[in-house]
Amino acid sequence: MSQKVDVKEGILSKNQKIADNLRRLFDEKKVFVINFVSSPGSGKTSILEKILPELKDKFNIFVIEGDLQTENDAERIRKTGVDAHQITTNGACHLEAAWVESVVSSLDLDKLDLLIIENVGNLVCPSSFDLGEDIKIVVVSTTEGEDKPAKYPSMMRVSNAFVLNKIDLVPYLNFDVEKCINYAKGVNSSLTFFKTSCYTGEGLRELADWITEKTLEKLGR
Amino acid sequence: MSQKVDVKEGILSKNQKIADNLRRLFDEKKVFVINFVSSPGSGKTSILEKILPELKDKFNIFVIEGDLQTENDAERIRKTGVDAHQITTNGACHLEAAWVESVVSSLDLDKLDLLIIENVGNLVCPSSFDLGEDIKIVVVSTTEGEDKPAKYPSMMRVSNAFVLNKIDLVPYLNFDVEKCINYAKGVNSSLTFFKTSCYTGEGLRELADWITEKTLEKLGR
Repeated sequence: MSQKVDVKEGILSKNQKIADNLRRLFDEKKVFVINFVSSPGSGKTSILEKILPELKDKFNIFVIEGDLQTENDAERIRKTGVDAHQITTNGACHLEAAWVESVVSSLDLDKLDLLIIENVGNLVCPSSFDLGEDIKIVVVSTTEGEDKPAKYPSMMRVSNAFVLNKIDLVPYLNFDVEKCINYAKGVNSSLTFFKTSCYTGEGLRELADWITEKTLEKLGR
Repeated sequence: MSQKVDVKEGILSKNQKIADNLRRLFDEKKVFVINFVSSPGSGKTSILEKILPELKDKFNIFVIEGDLQTENDAERIRKTGVDAHQITTNGACHLEAAWVESVVSSLDLDKLDLLIIENVGNLVCPSSFDLGEDIKIVVVSTTEGEDKPAKYPSMMRVSNAFVLNKIDLVPYLNFDVEKCINYAKGVNSSLTFFKTSCYTGEGLRELADWITEKTLEKLGR
């Protein structure tokens, strides 16, 4: 185990150096960066499809999509009118700062306000890999069960906001919303909570407004 | 990247040796071993809660539960009358053969027919770590979206059966069952499919019957 831990720490410390450089660059160029994380199928891309049409009227946005395979998600994002780049990790369970850096190096950051990175669907590994972001937003869907924040505490700890998605399905589930939120608060009391549904639209305006506010803060407007 | 790949291969080859030893041991002792894998919240534990009461009348069963944190799942299993051991991985995103070996070393395998290992909720990493099992069963729930088999092909490739769970929620979702199954078949045409609901009970008998048949084959009965 100890050899493995050393190796992992080597990879992580190399990733951290690149992430630190990225963060300095994003600060200098005044680009607000969000790292969206969740289990597979929690609805990250659907949420982006819903909030980007509003956000793109206010900001210049670019989206980086991370998936093991397929270009589907970048194509879905481009249909909203926002440009996107797909990173296919070819089996890797998370995005790394070096891969984000390689995409960012081809962007004109002077013209960018908001960079949204949608990570690989995985509630574990992406929590360890800083991508130079300002905030992490973790999406958990009601269908995953209310105990997930307790079972995956590392992701809760590193996140700034917790989006409880598919809230419209609660009537058909055995799911206690308050219990779920309390589990998350128990791990990280500083989380900001949103309850959303891409089907009914509930909570999406609140989420978009919060992202707008955070982006404006960074831009100094 | 190449250094990282070498390191990963070293970890995987060490794991494979232990898994090979475990598999020889399970074959010698005639224990059928299932590795249950899925995203967080797909319903692995709920499925086990539903099928174990029937299976335990036919076989001597032990369950190993893998989670980052909490003892909840082993407790849920024990309530069915089947003994269980919880491995908390303390952040690791998958179970490793060495950890299974350490639990197995305390079991009397001569008295055991069926060992069920419920892996950490993660649709990526557990696909690389052989645990010495006879079969992998991947659980995908309808709420995760029909594209998941295409986006997580490595897990589909190493699995023997595909359980599409939460089938009762389809009327409330924008989910095409046949499309999902075709995506999975496109990656691995040898998969056996089950459509299940822990709420209505649909498909659970078929799944339990299939596990019974596979276990009897191994036991030579």
